[in-house]
Amino acid sequence: MTSFLRNSWYCAGWSGDLGEKPIGIRICDEPIVLFRTEGGSVAALEGRCPHRFAPLSIGRVRGDVIECGYHGLQFDRTGTCTKNPHGSGTVPPRAHIRAYPVAERHGAIWVWMGDAAAADPDTIMDLYFVNAEGWAGTTGYLKINADYQLVIDNLLDLTHGTYLHLDTVGASPEDTLGSSLHYDFRTEGSTVYSDYTFYNSAPTPLMAHFYKEARGDMRASMRWDPASSLLLDIGITPVGQSPENGLLIPSAHLIVPETANSCHYFFAISRNWELENSDKTRIMGEIAMKAFAEEDEPVIAQCFEMMGRRPLFDLSPAILETDIAAVQARRILSKLIRQEGGEAGEAQVAAE
Amino acid sequence: MTSFLRNSWYCAGWSGDLGEKPIGIRICDEPIVLFRTEGGSVAALEGRCPHRFAPLSIGRVRGDVIECGYHGLQFDRTGTCTKNPHGSGTVPPRAHIRAYPVAERHGAIWVWMGDAAAADPDTIMDLYFVNAEGWAGTTGYLKINADYQLVIDNLLDLTHGTYLHLDTVGASPEDTLGSSLHYDFRTEGSTVYSDYTFYNSAPTPLMAHFYKEARGDMRASMRWDPASSLLLDIGITPVGQSPENGLLIPSAHLIVPETANSCHYFFAISRNWELENSDKTRIMGEIAMKAFAEEDEPVIAQCFEMMGRRPLFDLSPAILETDIAAVQARRILSKLIRQEGGEAGEAQVAAE
Amino acid sequence: MTSFLRNSWYCAGWSGDLGEKPIGIRICDEPIVLFRTEGGSVAALEGRCPHRFAPLSIGRVRGDVIECGYHGLQFDRTGTCTKNPHGSGTVPPRAHIRAYPVAERHGAIWVWMGDAAAADPDTIMDLYFVNAEGWAGTTGYLKINADYQLVIDNLLDLTHGTYLHLDTVGASPEDTLGSSLHYDFRTEGSTVYSDYTFYNSAPTPLMAHFYKEARGDMRASMRWDPASSLLLDIGITPVGQSPENGLLIPSAHLIVPETANSCHYFFAISRNWELENSDKTRIMGEIAMKAFAEEDEPVIAQCFEMMGRRPLFDLSPAILETDIAAVQARRILSKLIRQEGGEAGEAQVAAE
Repeated sequence: MTSFLRNSWYCAGWSGDLGEKPIGIRICDEPIVLFRTEGGSVAALEGRCPHRFAPLSIGRVRGDVIECGYHGLQFDRTGTCTKNPHGSGTVPPRAHIRAYPVAERHGAIWVWMGDAAAADPDTIMDLYFVNAEGWAGTTGYLKINADYQLVIDNLLDLTHGTYLHLDTVGASPEDTLGSSLHYDFRTEGSTVYSDYTFYNSAPTPLMAHFYKEARGDMRASMRWDPASSLLLDIGITPVGQSPENGLLIPSAHLIVPETANSCHYFFAISRNWELENSDKTRIMGEIAMKAFAEEDEPVIAQCFEMMGRRPLFDLSPAILETDIAAVQARRILSKLIRQEGGEAGEAQVAAE
Repeated sequence: MTSFLRNSWYCAGWSGDLGEKPIGIRICDEPIVLFRTEGGSVAALEGRCPHRFAPLSIGRVRGDVIECGYHGLQFDRTGTCTKNPHGSGTVPPRAHIRAYPVAERHGAIWVWMGDAAAADPDTIMDLYFVNAEGWAGTTGYLKINADYQLVIDNLLDLTHGTYLHLDTVGASPEDTLGSSLHYDFRTEGSTVYSDYTFYNSAPTPLMAHFYKEARGDMRASMRWDPASSLLLDIGITPVGQSPENGLLIPSAHLIVPETANSCHYFFAISRNWELENSDKTRIMGEIAMKAFAEEDEPVIAQCFEMMGRRPLFDLSPAILETDIAAVQARRILSKLIRQEGGEAGEAQVAAE
Repeated sequence: MTSFLRNSWYCAGWSGDLGEKPIGIRICDEPIVLFRTEGGSVAALEGRCPHRFAPLSIGRVRGDVIECGYHGLQFDRTGTCTKNPHGSGTVPPRAHIRAYPVAERHGAIWVWMGDAAAADPDTIMDLYFVNAEGWAGTTGYLKINADYQLVIDNLLDLTHGTYLHLDTVGASPEDTLGSSLHYDFRTEGSTVYSDYTFYNSAPTPLMAHFYKEARGDMRASMRWDPASSLLLDIGITPVGQSPENGLLIPSAHLIVPETANSCHYFFAISRNWELENSDKTRIMGEIAMKAFAEEDEPVIAQCFEMMGRRPLFDLSPAILETDIAAVQARRILSKLIRQEGGEAGEAQVAAE
């Protein structure tokens, strides 16, 4: 059984997607409802009414409260039932639901699933390139039918790009395999970095929409913060030039456990070139979506089924050098979950 | 685990739907096959052949027996195998299936799931308005993907109408909420009544097809008989007039457990006005189907999923005054199931 | 829980279906990948990569090895990892997968699921009429959503033809029921035969495409070899003539357990008449597919659901004389599985 890290900020949606209608989302197997109060701020409550357990996401926002769509109980942003509309209007003590700490940063809505006292919005991953000056880009969402940890594994080992993503965001095998691979990983506190450099390489299909030279020095640096936020800095410069002068394509990969067997994948991708070209913004979004939804998702979901939905290390996988970052992230995550008192199914990481 | 009351008549279909072809239906998680013998009477047998367990509903009726569609064994209405068509034709002792007491009343077919000696057709709910003089109406069917008890709860608390059914069978909030609600419930033997009166109220959209005044005194009286038959009397009269002079819209809601996680919903609805207007009969059926299948069903099914498919009282729901009838019905049903020796998952009703 | 016989050849596909792309198939609940090496011979390996458990069927064949489509590990036909393309290329000891004995005979690919030392291709069922001189026919495939043993039962008791297959491969009730049925069964070693003769009978619809007389002597001889390969010899001759002069329609029914709840059904069907008539070959294939996929499959799958997916003998079925061959085959299969140390859920065959 997969366990979740509770004391963590999880992306619950892109700000622009939450308007007048509430939105329901399941995170760490808990139903949550998000709504925007009259003043525009976001509230996050337990997603089911304590009366008959209707999903509050089918309810209506009335000023600063949300009204259940089944029998009309109203709840404010603290989870207190402020109104029973029927008869004498008595509100029973049990008519109270959990409120989650919530923050809106970098164009995203973030929910804290653990101890409210420990929720510090300043620890939210800095998505400096989302809706920010000097950058143009897009955001997106897909569902992945697999344990979220398999998606982290996927992202912390970018060598799969040459096999899965040749038509989208991967570089060609001649440029990336064997001695072409310059791989480095490091851990700083609970953050894991996985860096790849390919000198004198052809740009990926996505890069080639902006970068017009035949070859360049390519860098990809993936950063993972617990529980499951990843930030990828990709860049290319003419061969031998310094990274600052080049094309930069940063992206965020916010993997959010939904259940033990599925996760949300919120992504944002931007670039520092041709900021006004909205056609290329659209193309960038389409390529990213194709790579994640049509190339990654089916393979990850099939791996999960092939694993019988069991934890990875129960199956004694063959670990390669290029798995170091992913294994390290699993160790850190397991440790953090155990510290919370959770059952970290992945604790017994093979020391191979 | 949901349990079922065995000693009860359950609606297994509308009479008009059973012609020459047998019909299969699952009730209380038991497969049943219904067929009409040559003389026109209905037989109800265990729904699978004791030989290879083929569903008998794919078989053929031959005079007074049903023939299995797989290898041709024939069974009479007592469940006795009357023919093995192959070779010497020996019929093994095990080739016998259960026959259920069955009755045809008020345009419906009723099956008794318990002790045959206790089956008394006179205890079948009186659907006086179905196919009866002085009434015009229609019948229908839908499936609900939830524990049947949630549907009883839904029907015994009509305050949801104002939230779910504003476009169909619900009255407006101004007329039904707070002090407008006159709520009464009572128990007589094992029957529970839940009555609502709204004085000087606008008619519901369904009523407005017949009742042309802007306001009226509206009454809704719901009656529940164990296990899960409900009868709703709705009426409206000009403000201050006595109920006898008004529009009456009686309806039956025959909720039949299929499995622990799903149920059948047979409904009938009639009126005492404009009996010859077949257009309005059609509209009446469409509005009822919309209310039950498009408004109730999705919410009830989502509640059930939000409950993790667990029994209601395991989740410590907040009970409102308007839940009194539903709670009372659950108590009675639990008691009856326990008296039969069943496991009533709902016995521990919270005394809140 | 259904158990499987491991020491057995199972059909894994028709030869013509395996080209340059690998094919994945699950047999006895084990994932297998088939691929054709440069020289054209077939290899059968465990179907998931030992690194991240991606299905190898999405990989590419490179000469004599198969390359994983996720991160590029390569495996030869012995299951040895011959290449890790990344960085220093170290191959960890765990990067090894199981290789299955495989053979290609009679136009089919066969995989041995048990002890490799015991795999003798000469024990593969002789499909003498597939792609062979003097015969014309076709092959096909369907999936059956049921325990494979129910399909063997179906095939070893052909009396269902009169009920299920009247429009395709069944003979009419007047010719097959009661004293018309000449039924014989015998066991030779682990092989069970189930023979049917109908004298002076009308040809089946399939036969009638070739055999133009109104009546004939019809014979159907079914042979079962463990675990689940069946061969059916069907023939018809003018009344009173000897079988050698007649129309012969042999067919193979290779039932291959996929999981405990589903199986593959590979079939081949040929005839000794009108060999050049490709229209009739097409019709023959269509009739066979209709009989198996539209007539047998739904009934068998429904039986399985009606059985609650439990083993047949747990439900105390009524056994008929015409079940003798099927019961005998179940006894033999149970015994063989127990001899392998498996858990034969069907061991306790009722002695009725």
